Amino acid sequence: MAEEKARRRGRGGGGAARRAERTALRIDCAKVIDRNIPDMNMLSDETLEIIEYNAETVLEEIGVAFVENPAALERWKAAGADVDGERVRIPRGLARKLCETAPSSFVQHARNPERSVEIGGRKLVLAPVYGPPFVRDLQGGRRYATIEDFRNFVKLGYMSKWLHHSGGTVCEPTDIAVNKRHLDMLHAHMTLSDKPFMGSVTEPVRASDSVAMCEILFGGLNDRTVMTSLININSPLTFDATMMGALEVYATANQACIISPFIVGGAMAPVSVVGTLTQVLAEVLAGVAYSQLIRAGAPVIMGAFVTSIDMNSGAPTFGTPEAAQITHGAGQLARRLGLPYRSAGSFNGSKLPDAQAAYETANSLNAGLYSGVNFMLHACGWLEGGLVASFEKFVMDADQLGVLHRLGEGVSADAEAQAMDAIREVGPGGHYLGCGHTQRNFKEAFWRSELLDYKPYETWEEEGARDTMALAGERVARLLSEYQEPVLDPAVREELDAFVAQRKAAEADAFV
Amino acid sequence: MAEEKARRRGRGGGGAARRAERTALRIDCAKVIDRNIPDMNMLSDETLEIIEYNAETVLEEIGVAFVENPAALERWKAAGADVDGERVRIPRGLARKLCETAPSSFVQHARNPERSVEIGGRKLVLAPVYGPPFVRDLQGGRRYATIEDFRNFVKLGYMSKWLHHSGGTVCEPTDIAVNKRHLDMLHAHMTLSDKPFMGSVTEPVRASDSVAMCEILFGGLNDRTVMTSLININSPLTFDATMMGALEVYATANQACIISPFIVGGAMAPVSVVGTLTQVLAEVLAGVAYSQLIRAGAPVIMGAFVTSIDMNSGAPTFGTPEAAQITHGAGQLARRLGLPYRSAGSFNGSKLPDAQAAYETANSLNAGLYSGVNFMLHACGWLEGGLVASFEKFVMDADQLGVLHRLGEGVSADAEAQAMDAIREVGPGGHYLGCGHTQRNFKEAFWRSELLDYKPYETWEEEGARDTMALAGERVARLLSEYQEPVLDPAVREELDAFVAQRKAAEADAFV
Repeated sequence: MAEEKARRRGRGGGGAARRAERTALRIDCAKVIDRNIPDMNMLSDETLEIIEYNAETVLEEIGVAFVENPAALERWKAAGADVDGERVRIPRGLARKLCETAPSSFVQHARNPERSVEIGGRKLVLAPVYGPPFVRDLQGGRRYATIEDFRNFVKLGYMSKWLHHSGGTVCEPTDIAVNKRHLDMLHAHMTLSDKPFMGSVTEPVRASDSVAMCEILFGGLNDRTVMTSLININSPLTFDATMMGALEVYATANQACIISPFIVGGAMAPVSVVGTLTQVLAEVLAGVAYSQLIRAGAPVIMGAFVTSIDMNSGAPTFGTPEAAQITHGAGQLARRLGLPYRSAGSFNGSKLPDAQAAYETANSLNAGLYSGVNFMLHACGWLEGGLVASFEKFVMDADQLGVLHRLGEGVSADAEAQAMDAIREVGPGGHYLGCGHTQRNFKEAFWRSELLDYKPYETWEEEGARDTMALAGERVARLLSEYQEPVLDPAVREELDAFVAQRKAAEADAFV
Repeated sequence: MAEEKARRRGRGGGGAARRAERTALRIDCAKVIDRNIPDMNMLSDETLEIIEYNAETVLEEIGVAFVENPAALERWKAAGADVDGERVRIPRGLARKLCETAPSSFVQHARNPERSVEIGGRKLVLAPVYGPPFVRDLQGGRRYATIEDFRNFVKLGYMSKWLHHSGGTVCEPTDIAVNKRHLDMLHAHMTLSDKPFMGSVTEPVRASDSVAMCEILFGGLNDRTVMTSLININSPLTFDATMMGALEVYATANQACIISPFIVGGAMAPVSVVGTLTQVLAEVLAGVAYSQLIRAGAPVIMGAFVTSIDMNSGAPTFGTPEAAQITHGAGQLARRLGLPYRSAGSFNGSKLPDAQAAYETANSLNAGLYSGVNFMLHACGWLEGGLVASFEKFVMDADQLGVLHRLGEGVSADAEAQAMDAIREVGPGGHYLGCGHTQRNFKEAFWRSELLDYKPYETWEEEGARDTMALAGERVARLLSEYQEPVLDPAVREELDAFVAQRKAAEADAFV
């Protein structure tokens, strides 16, 4: 409905757009985290060298499979790999050499230039949950996700101060045909938010649609990078034609890809940290090298999506120490490789946004910051092992992302921070509440949650003794009721609408 | 009731004790964490040098107050300090020089030698919550703590695999007279657990009682360190006679003390990380130096209990980024000073063991591990800013402490961990579930929670859709029902009982 209203406003022409701009709610968005703290190098250099040596052995001896992709096999052959059927064996050093043309850092442009993000180096960009077929909220419980849910998550993301990125498939809009939902998802990111977003990867043609819509939104791309999309590797060591087809489309258009092994440890990789890291590195080296064969210099991110398996139930587990160790190790390997790094997120296996969800999430968020992640997908909203996008957890996690911002700033030691005047003024037995230094600094001194409860017990009880889930439910409702669409040129909006309508009309609905 | 039964058994003599030993439940207790991971040095060396310089300036120019303690003033004068009334100004370098006799690491003996702990160096010892006047559980809600609650917490601590230490005032037994409750508390730690514990600090005479009871329990001390007790500094820069009196008793008997500024940032210290660290270091230098004036070589721990204040409500806040920064900085300062370090814990400001409690707790636990804490008091059970000891949260946190153990181990890179045989065996497109490497390693490969839910959604729903709080409530009930007292020599037990009875009879009840 909000969208409908916006369309009418958009069609009203330039005057209406300017009026909308004047009355728009000011949406605060933090700058990308600039990590002013040292890296936590959990693994020793010797261990990293072993992993790097073994990864090259894997590529050389065992190789990787590029499935149903004759053109890829030709490219590898031309590059000097040994191709046997669909198996590609890569001589020691070749993949790493090919990776050298990938940039260590790049800018992903947003339609609002203030929201453009730099990915790589000391930066940390935060993006929301990706992929859940279900949603959960306090009112409706757990249910299949719809496009309305999708739009609501995009709105929440737009209004989240600590979230830099609108993400991609924030949930699967299962009420839209499989072959058409990418159009509605992109349309939502483009119109309901002005933050950067991700493109479709589920078929090469959908990647092409994504590029075409960006051409409209940005008025031509001219090689500007405006999407970062998620290319999963089918671990172990397999690159399927669908994902590689999407990668080929994006790399050709200079659009960024996260090249990400998708690993449940013990199932898709060995049950050891170093064994898993070896496979992750081999897969990333092959995938990134391939992206550079498509277009040298195309922006890519080394990804590591790693969870372990509960050997009792077979369920994937999250926020575990082994996942943290792998997150740290992969970060060290990415820095040695000179690539931006994607890992961690609001991972948890809980069915509810309860204490389990929060422990596991906080463990993963902390590991993400300390391990030097540059792009954190799933930074908020993840529930139940990724099966569910939770509205309440989205705002709970999005609030906690403020903690990462403050931690990442590091610690100032300038004269004002030294506060010697305050210590002198107060002296033994005094208190600092009223002193000059406190008066000058208290507003910015401490990070403050916009969600969690800091009230006295009695007040909290009088107000209904609400737990975090209830507070989050209220925040979700408030944010959605206050939401206002960011201004978009009505002509652009009309062209996007027309593109989506035309592409939808051209194909019959497919539901698998 | 369990205690009554045990007493009768104890009085049955040696044969009964031996029978009890044979039928006793085997209680698993992890070894102290040996941190095989690097330190995360969040603050730069330049910043640390500024703090160290400024702390000496504070001691020299402003000084510290030793209140109502003429003997302390005499000691300081003799050591070369400038004493003016109760103000002690310490010449630059003197306090640090005096700290040199404090050991960098020491062993705290437990009555069960397997439970003795080393504190300092690369070790991390975990102890439960300390001090709450209230308890909370699912059945009874929030209420004043009693000695029965206290005993139940000691039992839970004894049965918690990842908890190395029985702690001290796990809650305040408010149903016992203030001047007598220390006797019952120590009696509970000594009889219901065989893990190391803390002594009383609320009056010097209660510290003497603690030492006397340890003489009984250990059959004489001969300078063995068997208690680690919590000496809070009355920040800013004030050392009161009660706490210093207890310190004097303990240091004289070679018992360990945590010398710990108690700081709500913005109230008892400046509203800046570096300013707070400066005051913390000045206070610790003065306190540790004073302990060494009592007895050179007495074991001490540098403490830093730091929370910030919510400048809107005035409430203390926990698990915040500033608290983590201070935890890191104080750890770096402690290492430079060569002292064991105490900080972090299951800190949170939530009223319930919900998501807020868990986010804040996990933030603090992670900061504790990465900052190099050696002794973590409050590692489990803390709720509502320390006003409440929560039974459910105790077992929730105690389970999460397993994560710290696994993370602290670091990452093995031996041949088995490299898993090259597995990667070769499985190859592209296969899976690792059945391979030899997985079969050999899966049981120990991944840390596993004993509390959190890893079940499929449908199973979880059928079983009542319980959240973490409900699961924890069940675990509390099960542990308490399975609890068995560790075996204790009946003669020792009798002597402890007699000491408590005699000391209680000697004084009238005091309730303030």
